[in-house]
Parts: sequence; C-alpha cells; structure tokens
Amino acid sequence: MTHTITFLPSKKFATAARGTRISDVASQVRETGLYLECGGKGTCHKCLVELVEGDVEIKERKFTVAAGAKPLKVLSCQCVVSGDAVFSILSGTSVGPVSLALGKDIAAIAPELMPSPDDISPVVKTYRLRADQPSLERHSSDFQRLEVQVRKAAAADRPVRCGLPVLRILADAMRERSGLVTVRVLDDGACLTVVSVEPGDTPVRDIGIACDIGTTTVSVHCLDLASGKVLASKSDYNSQIRRGADIISRIDYAKTQKRLQEMRSLVLDTVNGLIDAVLDETNNSAGFVYNLAVAGNTTMVHLLLGLPPQNIRESPYMPVVNAPCIMTAEEVGLHANPRAAVTFAPGVGSYVGGDITSGLLTTPVVRDDKNVVLFMDIGTNGEIAIGNAEFLMAAACSAGPAFEGSGISCGMRAAAGAIESFEADAAMEHVRFGVIGGGKPKGICGSGLISLLGELYTQGIIDRGGKIAEAAPSSRITKIGGTKALVLVKSSEAHDGREIVLTEADINNLIRTKGAIYAACDLMLKNIGLTFDGISRVYIAGGFGRFIDVNKAVRIGLLPDIPRGKFTYLGNSSLTGATLALLSKTRREQLDALAKRITYIDLSSDNRYMDAYVAALFLPHTDMGRFPSVAKDRV
Amino acid sequence: MTHTITFLPSKKFATAARGTRISDVASQVRETGLYLECGGKGTCHKCLVELVEGDVEIKERKFTVAAGAKPLKVLSCQCVVSGDAVFSILSGTSVGPVSLALGKDIAAIAPELMPSPDDISPVVKTYRLRADQPSLERHSSDFQRLEVQVRKAAAADRPVRCGLPVLRILADAMRERSGLVTVRVLDDGACLTVVSVEPGDTPVRDIGIACDIGTTTVSVHCLDLASGKVLASKSDYNSQIRRGADIISRIDYAKTQKRLQEMRSLVLDTVNGLIDAVLDETNNSAGFVYNLAVAGNTTMVHLLLGLPPQNIRESPYMPVVNAPCIMTAEEVGLHANPRAAVTFAPGVGSYVGGDITSGLLTTPVVRDDKNVVLFMDIGTNGEIAIGNAEFLMAAACSAGPAFEGSGISCGMRAAAGAIESFEADAAMEHVRFGVIGGGKPKGICGSGLISLLGELYTQGIIDRGGKIAEAAPSSRITKIGGTKALVLVKSSEAHDGREIVLTEADINNLIRTKGAIYAACDLMLKNIGLTFDGISRVYIAGGFGRFIDVNKAVRIGLLPDIPRGKFTYLGNSSLTGATLALLSKTRREQLDALAKRITYIDLSSDNRYMDAYVAALFLPHTDMGRFPSVAKDRV
Repeated sequence: MTHTITFLPSKKFATAARGTRISDVASQVRETGLYLECGGKGTCHKCLVELVEGDVEIKERKFTVAAGAKPLKVLSCQCVVSGDAVFSILSGTSVGPVSLALGKDIAAIAPELMPSPDDISPVVKTYRLRADQPSLERHSSDFQRLEVQVRKAAAADRPVRCGLPVLRILADAMRERSGLVTVRVLDDGACLTVVSVEPGDTPVRDIGIACDIGTTTVSVHCLDLASGKVLASKSDYNSQIRRGADIISRIDYAKTQKRLQEMRSLVLDTVNGLIDAVLDETNNSAGFVYNLAVAGNTTMVHLLLGLPPQNIRESPYMPVVNAPCIMTAEEVGLHANPRAAVTFAPGVGSYVGGDITSGLLTTPVVRDDKNVVLFMDIGTNGEIAIGNAEFLMAAACSAGPAFEGSGISCGMRAAAGAIESFEADAAMEHVRFGVIGGGKPKGICGSGLISLLGELYTQGIIDRGGKIAEAAPSSRITKIGGTKALVLVKSSEAHDGREIVLTEADINNLIRTKGAIYAACDLMLKNIGLTFDGISRVYIAGGFGRFIDVNKAVRIGLLPDIPRGKFTYLGNSSLTGATLALLSKTRREQLDALAKRITYIDLSSDNRYMDAYVAALFLPHTDMGRFPSVAKDRV
Repeated sequence: MTHTITFLPSKKFATAARGTRISDVASQVRETGLYLECGGKGTCHKCLVELVEGDVEIKERKFTVAAGAKPLKVLSCQCVVSGDAVFSILSGTSVGPVSLALGKDIAAIAPELMPSPDDISPVVKTYRLRADQPSLERHSSDFQRLEVQVRKAAAADRPVRCGLPVLRILADAMRERSGLVTVRVLDDGACLTVVSVEPGDTPVRDIGIACDIGTTTVSVHCLDLASGKVLASKSDYNSQIRRGADIISRIDYAKTQKRLQEMRSLVLDTVNGLIDAVLDETNNSAGFVYNLAVAGNTTMVHLLLGLPPQNIRESPYMPVVNAPCIMTAEEVGLHANPRAAVTFAPGVGSYVGGDITSGLLTTPVVRDDKNVVLFMDIGTNGEIAIGNAEFLMAAACSAGPAFEGSGISCGMRAAAGAIESFEADAAMEHVRFGVIGGGKPKGICGSGLISLLGELYTQGIIDRGGKIAEAAPSSRITKIGGTKALVLVKSSEAHDGREIVLTEADINNLIRTKGAIYAACDLMLKNIGLTFDGISRVYIAGGFGRFIDVNKAVRIGLLPDIPRGKFTYLGNSSLTGATLALLSKTRREQLDALAKRITYIDLSSDNRYMDAYVAALFLPHTDMGRFPSVAKDRV
C-alpha cells in the first residue's frame, strides 16, 4: 500500500510504500535529500523535520497530526510511512553541495616530484604507427600488421589484444592513410590492449584525470599528458556526506543493495561533476580522456565500485579488495572515454587505503633507506605510517573527523568564512583571527581549531584537562545545553549575527582526536624501538585546512615536540600521489611495491594502545617531559 | 517519401522509402526474406517475384501494372520501390531454414582423438576452493584470499583478475560456507580471470559448446565437460544462405553497415537456434555454458563478429583478423552465460580459415614428422593442405559450391530426399539410387553427384569432355532451355512428380569444380617436388554428404588414382577439431602452433595454376597416364 508524502516548503511529493523511511522518501524529491551526518542512526539530529499533517510511525507506534494542529518534530531517519503525510523541512536541515574555493586545498605538486616530459608513461599510451602495406607476398591480417607495430612501439613482448569495437573499424582505419594510424594502447603488465585506432597522425589531445576520493572532499586534477602539466584542478564535498559524516556512518547507511547503489551514485555524481568542470574549463571533452588514476580510502573505493563495505567495519575488518585491477571508465561509471583505463592506488587494509599509499609515494620512503620518516594523514580518519625504503608500517586510529570540523559545534570545512588561525590574550580582550576569503566568520575549520586550542591552552584559558579554567574571562563564558562554553566571536562580529562558541564537549572531542593520533605514533615508534627523536622528518597530509600552525599543533600535543624544521606539510598528498601514478610507470611500480611492503598494524588489538591513548588525553600530554618547549612557553 | 509494398499470398506489407530494393523490403515482412543465392547480383534468378499491381523501378526505368492487368515478372534484387505496389511471391522462390537430419552429417569423433577425462582442460575451468578464514592476524582482502587459492588451483603464476560483477558478490560468497567456494576461472595464457563465484561446492554442470560455422551448414556439439562426452549434436543451414550461396556473394551482400548487421544477425540466429536446441534436448540452460569453441572460415568469422569482410575478396585478400582473441559470449552475442569464453580456431588467411586449421588438428600433421599427408576440404569452397609435423602448406581454390548441390539444377544438400549414390547401366535401363531417409528423391546431394558423374563416365553415357555421348540412350535425353540434358529420374519415380535432370551445363560446372581441386593438389605437390605417390594418406573433409564413393571420385578425377586404402573420410573435421580445442589445452596449443606454421600459398598468383586447371578439365584428366585404373575400367 502506498501513500503520498509531501514536503514543505517546496510542496514536492512522492508516493511511498508503508514502512519506507521518511528520510528515504525525502531523497526521492530533494536532490540533496536530508543531512544524515550519523548515517541515519538517529544520533546527530540533523535530519529533524516537522510532521504538519497526517500519519507517521516511530518504533511501531503511530502518531497523527490533524490539519491545523501543532506540528510534531520527528527525526526523519527514525520514522516510517504509515499514511499520507505532510512534512515541513526545517531550514538548515540539509547540506547542499557547496563548491569549495577552486584549488584552495589542492597543493601544487612539488616540481622535483614530477616526471620529466620524456618520462611520461600513462597506462594507456598513444602511438603513431605505420603498418606495413598489405601485399600478396605477406599473408597476414590487418590485426597482425598492427600487432607487430604495437609491440615494437610499446617495446614490450606481451600478447596484443583488441576488442570488437576496434576490430570493426580497423580495416578502414588502416587503409585511409596508407597504414598510418594513431592508436591508444593499454599496457596492464600482462597484455597490450588496443583501445582505439584512428587513421592518420592528426594531433591527439591526451587528457588524464587524477582523482582523490576522500570521505569529506573529492579533488581532481586535469592533466595534459603530452607535457605532464596540470591544466585545471577542482574540489567539492563528497555528496555522500548527507548520508553520513564519517566512514562508519557511511558503511552503516549502505547496508542494503539499494542504499549501496545510492552511495555509489552520490560519489559518482561528485566525481563526474568535477571531471565535467575541469574538462569544461580546459575546453576538452570526455572522449579525450583515456587515463584516470583514483586514490581513495578503502571504504570510498568500495562505495565507488558498488562493493559491499560491511566487512570493513566488522572484525576481522576485511575488505573485498585492496588493490582493484585496472577497469574501464564505462564499468566504473566515470565520465571519460568508455574504454579509458581507470587505475586505483592499492590499499593495504580496511583502514589504510590507497589514499595513504598514494600519499607515501610523495615522500622519501620510496628511495631513502637510511632516514626514518613519520607520515601522518589527518583527515576524516587518522592514518600513520613510519619507515623508509627498507621497512614501512602503517596503522589507522579512529580519530574521528573533528579536525575536518565535524562533530564540533562551531566546526566547518576549510571553505569561505572559516576561521583558519586564532590569536588572543589571556583576558580575550584582543581576539584576532584569519578568515578564509575574508569577511565575517561563519565557523572554524581544522587548522583554525588547532590554532585555537593551542592559543587557549598557552594563554591559560583552558587547563591541561581541557576544562575552561577558573581564570578564563567571565565575559566570554556561557552555557550551551548545560555545558560550559567560550564565546570566541561575538554575534556582532560574526556572519549572520550568530556568535561562534566552543563548548567543553567540543574541546574534549578535539583532545580525543589529537590523543588518538599521538598515541598511534607513540606506540608504532615503540614497536620499532625508536622515539620521536629518531625521526628525521614528519610529513603531514590531510585536508584540515590550507596551513597548519606547527607550533600550536605541538602545544596541544597533536604533533611531537621536535625541531620545527623537521615538519613538512604535504597538503592533499593522496591527489599528488595519484597524479604521479597517472603520469609515470616508474611511479606506478613504486606505488605497487610500496603497498606490498607495508606492514599493517592493528592498534585496536594492542592493549598498550589504550594506555598510550589515555596518557595523551591531556594538553599536551600527561608526561610533560615529552613537550619541553611547551612547558617553557605556557603563560 | 515512403510507399506501401504488399506481398501475396500472405498479404503482409511494409512501408519503404523510394529507392529501397524490393528484396530488402521482403526481408522486413518475411522471416526468411527471398533467396538471393547470388547475393543480389541478379544472376541466379531465385528471387523472382510478380508485380501484380502498382509501380516499380528497374535500372532507372519505371514500370507500372494496372489493377487486373497481366502481372510483370521481376527480379526483386534488381528493382526498387517507386510507388505503392503489390507483389506475388512465387512458390519455391525462397528457402526457409530446413532442419537437417539430426547428426546426419556430424561424424562421431574417433575415440583415439578424444582427451581422457583427466586431460580435460577448457579455457574456463571450474575449481572448488577453500579460502583461508578471515582473521585479524592476516591482513588481506577477500580477493587476496581467493587469489592465492586460484593461482594454486590453476597451477599458474599469472596475475589473477576479477571483474566488478564477481567482486560485488565475493564477500557474501566467501562467507556463506566458511570460505568454501566454486569458482570458474578463465586462463587466457596471460591472466587468470575469475568469471564466476558461488558459495559451497554444490555440483556444477559444466556444459561446453563446439561450433562449426560453415558457409552452408552450421553444426554444434553440446558436451559435458566433466566427462568430455558429446551429449547432443545438431546441424542446420546457415540462415545467411538466403543472402548468397557462396562466400563471394555473402561478402558482396554485406557491403553496407546495415547489411553486415543483418548477416551477423542471421548467423547468430542459426547458431543460437542450434545452441538452444541442444541445451533443450539435454535439459541444460545457457547459464551452465562457460566454454564455447568456434571454427569457421575467415568470412564466416568476420560476419559472425560484424567485421567488414570486403578486403577478403579484394586483392591482396587481407582479412581484418585471422586469430580473434578470446571474447565473451555477451560480446559475440551467443546464447551462453554472458561471461562465457568464446575461443576461435585461428585462420591463416582470407581463404584458409579456422575451419581448415581445426580440421588439420584431427590429422597426423600435429605429430607425424615423416609421412606427408594431403588434406582436402571440399565444401562451399575447396581448401587443400599438404604436409606433416615438419612442414605444412595450405591453399584455397575457388571450387564453388557445386558439390554442396548449389548451382546444379538438380542439386540439393545432404538432407532427406537427396540421392546420395547412383548406379546405372550404359542403356540406363536399370537405374538404382540411394535416397537419404528413403522414399522418392527430390534432388541429388554432393556425394550423389560424384557417384552419378563417375557412373555416367564409366558407362560411356558422357564423354571425357563432359558432353552427353552420342551413345547415350535417346529415351533419357531431353533439352532444358536449349541445353542438352539427361533425365536421371523419371517424373513417375520422383518426389512431387518432378523429373530429375542433369544438364550439360551442370556437368560442366561439376568438372570445373573437381578440376580446380585436383589442379590445386597437383600444383602444391609440384611446389614441394612430390607426386601423389609420395602421399601416405589423403584425408577428405567436407559436408557434401555422409559417404563419398572414393572409386567414383577417382573416376571423375576429383581424387588422385592412388591405392584406395590411403583415403580416409573425416566428415565434419572442423567441428571435430573445434571440439578437441574446446576440451583440451594441449589441443589448443597444437592448434595455435599449427596455424602459425602453415605457409599460405596463393594459387591465383601462380601462372602454372591455370595450366594445371585446364589440364584437369577432362574426365578424369587430359593426361590419362595419371589415372591408370580409370583407363582400364571404362566400358
């Protein structure tokens, strides 16, 4: 039995069977659906709607609102259709895809990492060949004439293959310009597959797409494969955000076939939207794209490919696949030539994915066998790797997305209006902050939160346990839902006149996140008998902002107290790594080798992890001896 | 501008644009279209229809028949739509697909050729595997757990691959029975591709299809791949016959994209009809079929795959492909599991195709490096191979389909009602003939024509030049369209009361065909400095009948005059070879090796061929010294 469900203010409606979740019905009529930050578990309350008239069922109990009666507030993810109903969507209930400032969080690729134009060798290469003329003396087929030249051009003695679409046009293509053809050949390491053939040697535009699929942000580079130049870059929020802010929520949401398909469509929409945008900007069409390289965490890759992600979050945390083989753009569903090759950065396990191996590809671990480096990717999750060209280990800590602004009352992503740096005196009389794009601030992004927490701690406004100190200026103290909070930006100075506030719960959340990351580094070093002093360099990757104030990150104990010159901020190293893998065969081989030699450490099964974590739940740490410069600095 | 074209007696009609060929319009309304034996060149006159009313355009001249006026006989392939029109289709104008007697022309496979059950190794093999249990200690993916076992089971160290459809069900399949799975793995020599995965080790039916696609006849075997047993066999006419009796007519017909697609559909209809029939007979479904092996001449394979065949018939006679790589049943369009692998017997050139290599696979040329054998495939075309395990050469002669009954006034295929053997005295008072299926005869099939010609020659009823002799019984002599002819079967003894007649033109046609074949053998032997006496064995393949009377074939000079014990009739050796390749890896390797070492001889470019051919245009030959036993026997 189906009922009509109408949503206000748009008055759009859909019919749905009894028992269908209201949030699922909303997805049918609203492009963006409702925001299910928690993945529909009923904990984030972001999908709150009002039942204006009609029936709804919540936990097997029916509720009815008569016409004109007082509306009933309900969580759309927790109630199901039980009759015709009209709901009002509250403003601010949903997040639409907000375009990120172009290139803002995409760091430029360091020139020394880039392959030289001579070294460029994507998996699908373009060759201009001249096949032997057909003659009565040489009894061979068109394909055989082509095969010889392809093998010669690719300098590889592998079987040459060719699908029906190419075979069907081969005879004409090879005769139009007396055997002169332009072919694109995929070398997958086992075979050479001719994916296209065109007569003549007309100039070909070879466009490559490198793509980082993050839980929060998706970024692409559009490259000219002749020169290796980045032609355009674009980022956007992963549309899946509205079905869960973090990986666990997404996995939980995607538990039915239909929802898995929905998640796949959502991320494809985002990726394809970005591909369309960069192609449009550079006056290219999808048909020119024969190479795509994707890096993403294991869950994102599963959702992109429509693979059930459930086992990722259930012990023993085993994904369907870590290193998907090369696929066609058509299979994956990406906007490119249907026969384009999509390569994936190989992952290592459920929580150390292709984004990490790809990021490591941009560090010296691929070649330096003496110095030991620490790689930290602080994104929606936190991943750590330690090693060099001799040994390499990686682990994930469920840090949570606090440094991406999620789960923090004033948190937001690194977009226009976000505070990205914060300074204040002890009395908070002079508060200074930097806002992305200028103007009045809307919230605080990851780098801003680190800066803020460091400053509040240094000025003694919060204590080592993260509580608001007795000495904190009373004019700035308020209460939010029974919790003590600090007013950071007064309503008069804030966007829309809404004051920006940090609660003790927020501080606690941030401390748990930084504690999880620090503890992971700490334990992994212990495992190999090193301390932070033995680390030659710390590479910081992640999308928490454009800049990270290393001093302040050390002050809160997120980063270790070592000489500041040892820190390098990589930006979106997953995208950089994907770009390198897209361009160069050597880099792809390094990437595969790297993924194979990583030892995956499961911290959750190590009892010592909890000890290290608890010890790190202070600012900067229980053991102040680890942070001598902080002890000295504090007011 | 479109017009309505109606066909009587069915009164079915179609609308067609001005300028559309009437024969193409007929294809739209009649399942079988009209019979274009000559491919629509206007020479065979088999598509004759009557314009009963309306307009038609022939060579830019318009003809009109008013209602009730005398109908106008026209060739439907030579006239085009120029207004509304009503045509009457003459009875006997078209050939419908006549089912061949089951298995009649499919020879049983000699037991010594069959691989033993232990040796059976199709390209897609079924394995029952037990993957390691997922555990916290082993950080690998489901695919990695499977990969290890697949490589072990296949005993091959190749990359293991897996498409998205399998990846999507992998997690569930591997957990349902604690890691016990049944997988099907394609080993293409470069990679191991997992094409299916099912939980548990439930008994699997593995059905294979071997298929010979001949110009005239298509035959399939349905095999149980567990035992290697042939479960069912079926043959049918290639539906393309109605668009041309021989290869050249088919190529000419398929000159537009649309017609190429039509030809592809026609042969797919035939092959799929046969696959459906054998699966139905054996209570199997297409889903069980993961292995198909196809052997066909180069043109048939081109038309099956929708590859333009034009260059096959234009100098320098270069096909698009000789050895298509493994394809999926879905790509090819065959009724089987969509992911089933279709292998093709490799061809050597435009006129020596996979049917010949496949046939040679059933002969000692794969292993015997001492004795030289002669292989003759007398089908719609004639192909010859000579050699052994050391050397091998092959050539084609445009023999024409006379021995398949085509182009002979009383000719028919080896189906019920066909005369397959013929005996008479010099006065033709006692005429005896064997009819396939018994009953009154309808015509004469290939083996019957050889028998007939041999008998007429031996009895002195025709002379060495193929003319009806002065001594021939006058009661049997008649005239057909100005040509002298012999009444072979009187109307009272024939099916439908239609007498069976052989004209001098028919005899000439048969002599040209046998002459072309003999001359080809003769010249090829000359090339290697051998004579017929140096041949240890002659293998005769082809679909011209169930039996070939070797004595009579020698009498007409089709076969050389060597000891009769040296001849072996192979039947449909192309199908047998396809079956062996389907079943055994060793056989596939032998087949590929064989195709690679064949030297393709182009007879048409050798001036001496015409001399040899002209010398063979006598019964049995100009040089009677070559046929001592015949000279002795003749009355």
